[in-house]
Amino acid sequence: MEKFRASERLVDQLSEEKLTSYRAWLQYEQIENQDYVSKIKPFVQHVAVDLACDEIIDNALIEWQTGLSSMFQINASIIKDGSVDKGLVLKLDQDYQEDAYVLRASDDQLILTGGSSRAILYGVFHILRLIQRRALLAGLSIKETPKNKIRMINHWDDMNGSVERGYAGKSFFFDDYQFIKDRQRVYDYARLLSSVGINALTINNVNVHRIETELVTDTFLSDVKQTSDIFNQYGITMYLSINYAAPVELGVLTTADPLDEDVIAFWGKTAKHVYDVVPNLGGFLVKADSENRPGPFTYGRDHAQGANMLGKAVEPYGGKVIWRCFVYNNKQDWRDRKTDRARAAYDHFKPLDGEFNDNVILQIKNGPMDFQVREPVSPLIGELENTNQFLEFQIAQEYLGQQRHLVYLIPQWKEVLEFDTYAKGENTKVKDIVSGEVFDNKIAGIVAVTNVGIDYNWTGHTIAQLNFYGYGRLIWNPDLTSEEIALEWIKQTFGHDPKTIETIMKMVMPSWEAYENYTSPLGIGWMVNVSHHYGPNIDGYEYDMWGTYHFADRNGIGVDRTIATGTGYTGQYHAENRDLYESIETCPDELLLFFHHVPYTHVLKSGKTVIQHIYDTHHKGVEQVEEMIANWDSLADKVDERRHQDVKERLSHQLWSAKEWRDTINSYFYRKSGIADEQNRKIY
Amino acid sequence: MEKFRASERLVDQLSEEKLTSYRAWLQYEQIENQDYVSKIKPFVQHVAVDLACDEIIDNALIEWQTGLSSMFQINASIIKDGSVDKGLVLKLDQDYQEDAYVLRASDDQLILTGGSSRAILYGVFHILRLIQRRALLAGLSIKETPKNKIRMINHWDDMNGSVERGYAGKSFFFDDYQFIKDRQRVYDYARLLSSVGINALTINNVNVHRIETELVTDTFLSDVKQTSDIFNQYGITMYLSINYAAPVELGVLTTADPLDEDVIAFWGKTAKHVYDVVPNLGGFLVKADSENRPGPFTYGRDHAQGANMLGKAVEPYGGKVIWRCFVYNNKQDWRDRKTDRARAAYDHFKPLDGEFNDNVILQIKNGPMDFQVREPVSPLIGELENTNQFLEFQIAQEYLGQQRHLVYLIPQWKEVLEFDTYAKGENTKVKDIVSGEVFDNKIAGIVAVTNVGIDYNWTGHTIAQLNFYGYGRLIWNPDLTSEEIALEWIKQTFGHDPKTIETIMKMVMPSWEAYENYTSPLGIGWMVNVSHHYGPNIDGYEYDMWGTYHFADRNGIGVDRTIATGTGYTGQYHAENRDLYESIETCPDELLLFFHHVPYTHVLKSGKTVIQHIYDTHHKGVEQVEEMIANWDSLADKVDERRHQDVKERLSHQLWSAKEWRDTINSYFYRKSGIADEQNRKIY
Repeated sequence: MEKFRASERLVDQLSEEKLTSYRAWLQYEQIENQDYVSKIKPFVQHVAVDLACDEIIDNALIEWQTGLSSMFQINASIIKDGSVDKGLVLKLDQDYQEDAYVLRASDDQLILTGGSSRAILYGVFHILRLIQRRALLAGLSIKETPKNKIRMINHWDDMNGSVERGYAGKSFFFDDYQFIKDRQRVYDYARLLSSVGINALTINNVNVHRIETELVTDTFLSDVKQTSDIFNQYGITMYLSINYAAPVELGVLTTADPLDEDVIAFWGKTAKHVYDVVPNLGGFLVKADSENRPGPFTYGRDHAQGANMLGKAVEPYGGKVIWRCFVYNNKQDWRDRKTDRARAAYDHFKPLDGEFNDNVILQIKNGPMDFQVREPVSPLIGELENTNQFLEFQIAQEYLGQQRHLVYLIPQWKEVLEFDTYAKGENTKVKDIVSGEVFDNKIAGIVAVTNVGIDYNWTGHTIAQLNFYGYGRLIWNPDLTSEEIALEWIKQTFGHDPKTIETIMKMVMPSWEAYENYTSPLGIGWMVNVSHHYGPNIDGYEYDMWGTYHFADRNGIGVDRTIATGTGYTGQYHAENRDLYESIETCPDELLLFFHHVPYTHVLKSGKTVIQHIYDTHHKGVEQVEEMIANWDSLADKVDERRHQDVKERLSHQLWSAKEWRDTINSYFYRKSGIADEQNRKIY
Repeated sequence: MEKFRASERLVDQLSEEKLTSYRAWLQYEQIENQDYVSKIKPFVQHVAVDLACDEIIDNALIEWQTGLSSMFQINASIIKDGSVDKGLVLKLDQDYQEDAYVLRASDDQLILTGGSSRAILYGVFHILRLIQRRALLAGLSIKETPKNKIRMINHWDDMNGSVERGYAGKSFFFDDYQFIKDRQRVYDYARLLSSVGINALTINNVNVHRIETELVTDTFLSDVKQTSDIFNQYGITMYLSINYAAPVELGVLTTADPLDEDVIAFWGKTAKHVYDVVPNLGGFLVKADSENRPGPFTYGRDHAQGANMLGKAVEPYGGKVIWRCFVYNNKQDWRDRKTDRARAAYDHFKPLDGEFNDNVILQIKNGPMDFQVREPVSPLIGELENTNQFLEFQIAQEYLGQQRHLVYLIPQWKEVLEFDTYAKGENTKVKDIVSGEVFDNKIAGIVAVTNVGIDYNWTGHTIAQLNFYGYGRLIWNPDLTSEEIALEWIKQTFGHDPKTIETIMKMVMPSWEAYENYTSPLGIGWMVNVSHHYGPNIDGYEYDMWGTYHFADRNGIGVDRTIATGTGYTGQYHAENRDLYESIETCPDELLLFFHHVPYTHVLKSGKTVIQHIYDTHHKGVEQVEEMIANWDSLADKVDERRHQDVKERLSHQLWSAKEWRDTINSYFYRKSGIADEQNRKIY
């Protein structure tokens, strides 16, 4: 099985048909087009390594050989410490930015110059991607510099083997309160990550329970090291999620007060020991004072004091502390309409701007609530002028159909990245803030909660692989369009048949809109079942303590977040956006109910009333899923049976679920409003 | 610790203050009133056993000595095979019905004559109960014959140690997939059960999972025998819940078809082996074709075929098969308003009347839905003229506050027992049907799901002990009033202080009404959170598959179950009840929304509109809990600290929860109806 060299053991475990799913976008299908083969062959006979080899370069060479042997049945010869006239030449140029690389080709020589071994690895994946997409190499001249220096993945894996909000099977890191000793999956995963430019990850859940608290102790440090070393071989820096209350949880101290001398000493000693054993560790990720997790508030300290204490502990070793801003009151009284969860991140962290250590980074979710199908951009982004920050997305489709629904997420994320905050005047876009450019941050980047698990196709839904792939590609280069990313992925994953490409494009491109259509309308969010977050439950969060309300009554619906009459949340934005959202006249339709409470008869910019919009979009969403199914059915003879069947089954469930959403939402609002559907469609 | 002789080991485990809770109604407090002592002493110095001793008689004597030594500091001398002039004489009279006994006293001799050893045991508990209540014995002349021959308890304990719908801690039978080897709790429990006349029980959940399927195999049969023997020593017959699909689940066969020769042989062999090892086993309890449990439907057979196959298997050993009638479609489409879950038991089992074996008993829940705070009586009761049947209650407060709310259940059960079915003309009451009198059944009785667990007070809520006690007393004699039962229990449990008695009576007597007031109104039921069934969630079951809907819209609420325009459910009752429920004019207020869909402005017999009734009862219910708390607080120096604190904490939570109910229900219906509260109280 040269084709999938890194996974020989898995080849024994997975049937060939399942391996096709497992290979994801690194299919390296044999190329039948001899014209194309002849044009590429000059570049792929030899590879010269004009630099000092290390494990990362070795993996780049393995990948190169794996790809070529599979696509061309060629065993590329490797010339170390030298150059070649024909073929690929790998060079290092330390003047380049660390992850940047240049590809320049004549008719038969291709020079890949990188700023680091990792950049070379990225360059090799780039060339293989070009070949998988049947691009020509002659005359190539490309310079790639990633927009974001840190491009990270967060796992929410628990050591009992479960994955919080995981929809693709159990963890491949942990099982039964231990590391899984067979680490083949970890190698293969590292390879997938680096193929799309990911250079950092955490492996354990931000909710750190008793057992995971011991990850920073000798109980697990040798496992941590082995895992970290695997990722390092692919240019990926590993971090650990830690328990802020570790000194208490481990029974060492009775306090976790960040100003307590013993606590400071505990973390100093812990950090020293961790870095003695795992010198390549990136640092710690912390969820503190959030959803029942302990934190500095317990001791009357603020988040800067908490984070800086940890920052200082890891500083001597070049470590970083990533501190999540997902802090809000999750014991809210639903009767209290003044408290607004949407305000929380800004209210908590804006006043602390400038108080964080240089090696502390605040991690901010893309929206003010929690990864809903539609939210405004978090107003905290652009407001921290002197604080390192990461933007956080969620690839796992927690509120977006849990990888049983096909939802292409890149269009949503692009809206976030392109959003103009006006933080430093017009055209201060999110993408330029989180990249560190606007405020000249030392550390900056984007992070996302992963959607992978031990399922043989990694992501549960085969097409959810696209969100994993697309996330890496988008944060490398936010100027790629959603269409470009999808096309890249389809060609690599499903090949070059024009009908297949066109059909899958027709399925994925409107899929976010479709999901929005048949779920909660006009930016209001939630309306899902409590706790597991799947399926419609309009009042599920309405009389609960999570700060997530719609306030629907027989007359209207929506949350008044205006300064004039509401919670004042709009005031957290810069003037341009504040005014846009404050006025019911200018507020975009898709966010109307997030910002305003309106009657069902309110007329949208579309010309429809709110209630008619609800009816229409909910019918349309179901029709869009029906179209997806018709499209996918038409590919029965174009896609291998296993993947076709897998997707077909999920689409069939999606249709059932979409109808549940449509009928529940429409019935709920009809029963409440009493206003009939203009088109007289069935309401229950 | 003579006082609590049977529990010496537990005495080591529980502190004295917790033991007071653990003793429940068998406190046997020392009697301070010397006048009373002098009147009773003649009867308690000696006990003569004028019959052949067995383990049950031994336990009766132990109980007698335990009670006397604790209350009088007397060590009653036992004279075997003889009589005494002064004291207690135990005699057997086999002409009596098995569980019947007579108590006749002169001035200093008390003769207890029983139909069996068990009857003697009951008689001894009766005398001790009289003494605990400070009754005089001289001149006593009592004949007791239980109304129901079988008086049963069902446990929903799983072998992993959890208790399904258990609110008093884990199982005391099982833990970690094994029987708990220390069986002290089982002894103490058997004693409590026999003290209130329970003579049968199942120890494992009706939902029989993989591991419990093996209870009928050698894996666990010796444990089953040991447990069964303990209960037998207290006159209690033990049964097992079995898995209908056991032949498949155990890997013996590929079918569980009741007409299949191999299946018949499997059960014949299994029954023989079970009875070889456990000859005193009562038989099997079966939940089949219900809530995803397997059953005869899987094989195109009916329930008579399924039950009779098992009945024949245990017949040679005197075994019985109890077959639950809780069969309904739990995959219902909420859009379908024609299917009515309330109809299910009648529709499934009425046509099979007369087809069941003599040793098969159908177990019918008291209402057509599932142990709601208010339901009509199941129309199946009275309709089975040629079938053995048990009535099923639930002592566990699954939908009634889960033993965190104080709810006295006897008033509810009395309404069921006193309900006139008109099955054989006027005055065909439920109590006379389920006792077997109306249709002259060979086997008859009442069963209930227990509310006990490993908590030191058995029932989580101390006052929930009253429901355990009251259940036993009520089904022994359904003509006892709720007040009589509560008084009996209070005196035995909390002593004879008049203020304490009066205060606790004021708390318990209106508690069911209070719970009904602040939860779902007018018989509609449900409105709880899905799955765990605690706390308000008005639409929780509204758009789900469980057949449990309220159909509330902006105009009105309720389920139309009439023949004229609804599901026709009323037609399952005899004419008198059918007409009563069919007409909106005669339908009792408290069941109005169970039978009719009415506008919020519909005027009840009380003169209030439905919506004003909702507002008023929800405020009243909370006030009633506030009164309970005031009452309990006034007993701070009357009740031992531990029990006072335990109850106080639960009452405090109950108040919080009652307010959640009040405000959620009132807000929901105000938002939907738009009709203001006449009294202008706060609605959110």
